Amino acid sequence: MPTTLANDRLLPADERTRDLAREIFAGIESAPILSPHGHVDPTLLADDVPFSDPTELLITRDHYVTRLLHAAGIPLADLGLDPQRPVDPRQPWRLLAENWHRFTGTASGYWITHELQTLFGVADEFGPDTADAIYDRIAVTLAEPAFRPRALFDRFGIEVLATTDDPLDDLAAHARLAADGTFRGRVLPTFRPDAYLDPEGADFADRVERLLAATGEERTFAGYLRALEARRAHFIAHGAVSADHGVLEPFTTDLDPAVAQSLFADAVAGRATAEQARLFRGHMLFQMARMSVADGLVMTVHPGVRRNHHRPTFQAYGADTGHDIPVRTEYTENLRPLLEAFGTAPGFHLVLFAVDETVYSREVAPLAGFYPSVYIGAPWWFLDAPDAILRWRSAVTETAGFYRSSGFIDDTRAFLSIPARHDTSRRLDAAFLARLVAEGRATLPQAHRIARDLVDALPREVFKL
Amino acid sequence: MPTTLANDRLLPADERTRDLAREIFAGIESAPILSPHGHVDPTLLADDVPFSDPTELLITRDHYVTRLLHAAGIPLADLGLDPQRPVDPRQPWRLLAENWHRFTGTASGYWITHELQTLFGVADEFGPDTADAIYDRIAVTLAEPAFRPRALFDRFGIEVLATTDDPLDDLAAHARLAADGTFRGRVLPTFRPDAYLDPEGADFADRVERLLAATGEERTFAGYLRALEARRAHFIAHGAVSADHGVLEPFTTDLDPAVAQSLFADAVAGRATAEQARLFRGHMLFQMARMSVADGLVMTVHPGVRRNHHRPTFQAYGADTGHDIPVRTEYTENLRPLLEAFGTAPGFHLVLFAVDETVYSREVAPLAGFYPSVYIGAPWWFLDAPDAILRWRSAVTETAGFYRSSGFIDDTRAFLSIPARHDTSRRLDAAFLARLVAEGRATLPQAHRIARDLVDALPREVFKL
Amino acid sequence: MPTTLANDRLLPADERTRDLAREIFAGIESAPILSPHGHVDPTLLADDVPFSDPTELLITRDHYVTRLLHAAGIPLADLGLDPQRPVDPRQPWRLLAENWHRFTGTASGYWITHELQTLFGVADEFGPDTADAIYDRIAVTLAEPAFRPRALFDRFGIEVLATTDDPLDDLAAHARLAADGTFRGRVLPTFRPDAYLDPEGADFADRVERLLAATGEERTFAGYLRALEARRAHFIAHGAVSADHGVLEPFTTDLDPAVAQSLFADAVAGRATAEQARLFRGHMLFQMARMSVADGLVMTVHPGVRRNHHRPTFQAYGADTGHDIPVRTEYTENLRPLLEAFGTAPGFHLVLFAVDETVYSREVAPLAGFYPSVYIGAPWWFLDAPDAILRWRSAVTETAGFYRSSGFIDDTRAFLSIPARHDTSRRLDAAFLARLVAEGRATLPQAHRIARDLVDALPREVFKL
Repeated sequence: MPTTLANDRLLPADERTRDLAREIFAGIESAPILSPHGHVDPTLLADDVPFSDPTELLITRDHYVTRLLHAAGIPLADLGLDPQRPVDPRQPWRLLAENWHRFTGTASGYWITHELQTLFGVADEFGPDTADAIYDRIAVTLAEPAFRPRALFDRFGIEVLATTDDPLDDLAAHARLAADGTFRGRVLPTFRPDAYLDPEGADFADRVERLLAATGEERTFAGYLRALEARRAHFIAHGAVSADHGVLEPFTTDLDPAVAQSLFADAVAGRATAEQARLFRGHMLFQMARMSVADGLVMTVHPGVRRNHHRPTFQAYGADTGHDIPVRTEYTENLRPLLEAFGTAPGFHLVLFAVDETVYSREVAPLAGFYPSVYIGAPWWFLDAPDAILRWRSAVTETAGFYRSSGFIDDTRAFLSIPARHDTSRRLDAAFLARLVAEGRATLPQAHRIARDLVDALPREVFKL
Repeated sequence: MPTTLANDRLLPADERTRDLAREIFAGIESAPILSPHGHVDPTLLADDVPFSDPTELLITRDHYVTRLLHAAGIPLADLGLDPQRPVDPRQPWRLLAENWHRFTGTASGYWITHELQTLFGVADEFGPDTADAIYDRIAVTLAEPAFRPRALFDRFGIEVLATTDDPLDDLAAHARLAADGTFRGRVLPTFRPDAYLDPEGADFADRVERLLAATGEERTFAGYLRALEARRAHFIAHGAVSADHGVLEPFTTDLDPAVAQSLFADAVAGRATAEQARLFRGHMLFQMARMSVADGLVMTVHPGVRRNHHRPTFQAYGADTGHDIPVRTEYTENLRPLLEAFGTAPGFHLVLFAVDETVYSREVAPLAGFYPSVYIGAPWWFLDAPDAILRWRSAVTETAGFYRSSGFIDDTRAFLSIPARHDTSRRLDAAFLARLVAEGRATLPQAHRIARDLVDALPREVFKL
Repeated sequence: MPTTLANDRLLPADERTRDLAREIFAGIESAPILSPHGHVDPTLLADDVPFSDPTELLITRDHYVTRLLHAAGIPLADLGLDPQRPVDPRQPWRLLAENWHRFTGTASGYWITHELQTLFGVADEFGPDTADAIYDRIAVTLAEPAFRPRALFDRFGIEVLATTDDPLDDLAAHARLAADGTFRGRVLPTFRPDAYLDPEGADFADRVERLLAATGEERTFAGYLRALEARRAHFIAHGAVSADHGVLEPFTTDLDPAVAQSLFADAVAGRATAEQARLFRGHMLFQMARMSVADGLVMTVHPGVRRNHHRPTFQAYGADTGHDIPVRTEYTENLRPLLEAFGTAPGFHLVLFAVDETVYSREVAPLAGFYPSVYIGAPWWFLDAPDAILRWRSAVTETAGFYRSSGFIDDTRAFLSIPARHDTSRRLDAAFLARLVAEGRATLPQAHRIARDLVDALPREVFKL
């Protein structure tokens, strides 16, 4: 295990390239962390409550981990995911230890190894024989003041951390953090309106009703748009820099206002057909771009995932339980209406993420290589892993260069994994740039500058930090 | 040529990684061969007949080879594929020799080189000048008792070899082998019902008729299902562990029994529309999963190939003549009905193969990373080649780890190529694992354990061997 | 910067593999350039006019460059693309210098670096501080007789250069070059009829009218086909070896003559529906294959690009202004009618290009691995870049070998970039072959022969040079 986190981890095996990579990495290793998109709960920092037990920290809340244990045949209930059936937290921990070989080569396995070693000083290999001792060590460590969320925020060198929030969230936790003179970090909310834009969502009509009530708007399409604009303004007043959109397909369309009003009426009445619902969603993604042009919120799009693929699991355990499965996704035609209208609008930023690797060289890089608004999102979700990150850089850079990419986004729910993820990204950027230098395609000074810009200037520019 | 099969063949060029790979490979090089899916004729072993001439052995029966010669402008008839026009077997052999440069870099070229050197001790480079001498050498060798199929079975270290068989096959060859005290290997049949499940197949009605007659079932959908179940039981009684399904798309659907009965009636009457035929196939794939849950046969699916692309060649030479061409394939939505019904059923194993590389990271690995039933099939057909195998490992491992993959499947019709193919797979697993170790992503002990499990524990588990 | 164009540029970093690559490359480095597909203006050579200023040479006419500057927020007008608003050529030049970091890692950045250093002897790094001096140096150099197009044609070692031409072009420039005893190169026209085959093109009816008038044919489908045949004959008489086809999808269909006549009538009358237009295009691609079988012109197909994605830019600046964006493309089913009819026709050559990488291993290589007519086009457009070229070789070679690929095609509008592009391709072929040797998958003599054939025998065969 000691070798797992060797100093040269993730750097290329070839000695000459590794030497270059090491030198490039040294220039960015300790740069402040900018995390402009993720899913950390803001109350964690606002209340600065100690973390709970190791199991909740590293297993229960991380569906990247529970899904692989589930695939190994372990019911989610045995991992503590059924609130009606609490389990001794050591039980899932031991299950993870017994199945630890299943995580070798995965991103999750690498991150957890990183956390165990760098945060908790675990020197032994994780496994059935060491599970209890490691559990105890972590449990003790978590009780120390130095392991409270704010202390870690400082130790991790985080400068900006964006959360993801419901449009009707009052953002009180963010306000408290901003007003707190003892906390120097920036914790920014992100406007995530998916559930308010999809007529096929389970509680769409109810959500729209609450949205209109909260903003005092009338139940018309125009009122609905004004309500969304008002909530965006509320987010901006609390520091938000971006609005995030999770959709099955990035389909966009600009509808006639009368048509949109009619669709809206059908949608809230629950009588929209599947095709009407699709049109409505496509028009609302278009409207979100229009609002971003107007109010300056960076627009991020995360398309291409069939959520809750296994309905029985969804019904028993809810969403985010490991069975969101990607689907083929199309960007060129789907985004054309949006980009023809807003693609060259001053100040508009549209960051396109993907879990379908095929679009990187074919669609996303060519789009970002022309439209000043379009940025190539860092590899997302299943693709946020060493080999996939290098494949992504290879796929997009030759068409669009480095300066049309978004900078790294950790997208994590697991606060403790933030350093591991940024460290991973930085090492891989260094590895990729080192290869370009070794192959005579970039000079070392060029590589140094790009490496620095990728962790600093670029995310600041793309996310208006 | 001597360097072609150097000891370090297929291992990484980088010295440090190669040393690691060599060490990992040494631990698995001589492990017994488990071959749970392939197309060797069981009578070959049951009758232990000597192999025929070198041309039939290495050219005529291998459509991987004949297709590239055809692409070079050589009519298939000149290769001996037209039964009405026999050719001197030296003629195709010389044509292969003249066109041998066309095979450099291909999987077939690598396998044949491996066979010539390791089996037949050919030291000279294959080509027009050496063709006749090499032909003679092979012909002489094939006449030796040590080159009879059973002797080679032992020498190759094969422990299990699965064949692929028609549901109405009496499996007499398998029975003879099982009853033969002098043969210690396991030769297992595989249930392959494609032609009995597709109303658009040329002789569907006739096949169903024979299926019902063989099992004494009535001509209803329920009778048809019972007949299939009876034949599966027959296969299980003869040692079968899996049922294999070749489909254009892995579409599945669960139909109401009355609808299914009506479709069945239309299908056997030859009046099913294209859409009805598709529904019927989708329902039968669903039914096959249901039966696998009930009787325990591992379900393997090989989708995404447009068979017999060039109808004139099909009409002249029949199927499997080199013009089966892959098409884009979708797994996430198509398999959802099947997986919602059976994805977490105890003991159900579903191995998903692909010739569309795009699905590996996007669909298959995420599915296998949640569903305990789903395993990622080894790279299939055109993708069973060194670079493609490494791309596959890279695409799936970060999401699903090593333990959701199927173990290697050689899928071969060419008995003599079995050692070359397993050797290739083992070297590439060692190469991939060595890279993870060199990059600090796995420890050497972890890599050793995984390498061993990939050739032993994993195929035994996945295929219930 | 000096290291950027080190002798070993683009060769693998690993020392052992690099040594092999260097040796293989040495055997092909100075082979004559065969450029069977590109977009150089033939009058450039016919008139042998000096090149204009550095900006027009390296920026204004190269939409690969202007698109990345546009993506950086620079209006195309500031780059001199608006004929109504001429700019001082030093202004775009300085903008490129200021944004030069954006080109690191891109193909364009590499080519321009190559040109600056090898053609113009620029030793300083390009950037704001050096921009003016470099501009002056290039401007002075361009005025020298040694930098006239014909002198460069010789210095570059070009043997054959194909242009791309309108079917109604009189090909006078080509005739002049052929008749000029002082010019020894071969400059061949290429028949490019797209605008005459697509009823949805803006001026389709007008073009057809002019085509019929030029050939004296009647306005029937049969007359239209004869007119196209006559123009192809005109091209062949002027040395053409190929006909090139740019289509959104490679859909083909063989229509009944009466149906085709009716579609033609609707198309020229401007009343074809979208589906009719698609059928017409599909039938015309089929007809183009039929004509290629008859007259021997090599058929090249470049599908899968949505042209002029941003209509406002198209309206302001015209076509080829950087916003042609690839789309997913399907070859297996779309080309089946064409290949069933002509796939094994003697002498027929069909070169399939792609900007959708997913088709390489899945569709194009399997097609080229069976059909003697099908060749795998070199990586096109966004994919004509170092990493993409290696991905392509890896994706297609294991299925189809080296001898089903087309040889390198530079496809350039930028005459000065031709050496850089061929040098790049040759280095990458050497790098790929060196890896096969290092991994024991090919012998060094095999690699040498293949490298030579890739730059010589193969393009001569594929393009009938």
